[in-house]
Amino acid sequence: MNGVDILGYSAGFITTLTFLPQVLKTYKEKSARDISLNMFLIAATNEIMWVVYGFLKNDMVIVLTNAVVLVLSLTMVVFKLKYSKSVANKIE
Amino acid sequence: MNGVDILGYSAGFITTLTFLPQVLKTYKEKSARDISLNMFLIAATNEIMWVVYGFLKNDMVIVLTNAVVLVLSLTMVVFKLKYSKSVANKIE
Repeated sequence: MNGVDILGYSAGFITTLTFLPQVLKTYKEKSARDISLNMFLIAATNEIMWVVYGFLKNDMVIVLTNAVVLVLSLTMVVFKLKYSKSVANKIE
Repeated sequence: MNGVDILGYSAGFITTLTFLPQVLKTYKEKSARDISLNMFLIAATNEIMWVVYGFLKNDMVIVLTNAVVLVLSLTMVVFKLKYSKSVANKIE
């Protein structure tokens, strides 16, 4: 494995965890008013495409990394639907 | 180009645009309180890694798609810093 490969694997690993800080913040604060539902619906749909692509290419790295992002995206969709009104509720 | 390739290119195109609904929502509503700054800082750093990786692999598809996501991520970092307090300001 050369330096370019290491850079690629490192970048891929970080990509997998990109949504994690948002999931943790939203879980902690129970507020998702400013979050775009469309962003995470598109992300989840897109990750399903990548997982299918990974299976068809028989590439388990693509399948597994995108499965992680899929779970995080679906978590944000659930959080958005659950916590979207929390700021409004607090004001009321 | 076979069906698997078409799926891969389609998935890549959608990935490029994933952050766009969030950018548009935040631009419109001028509120970013619920947005994770860390998420978009990690995303921006990660996209720089992918752009460098693309250059080193001489793969302009990787360079260009990740350059688009980099611009959207940096836009969200700026919006977060600019609009983070807007809900609090409105309440005051």
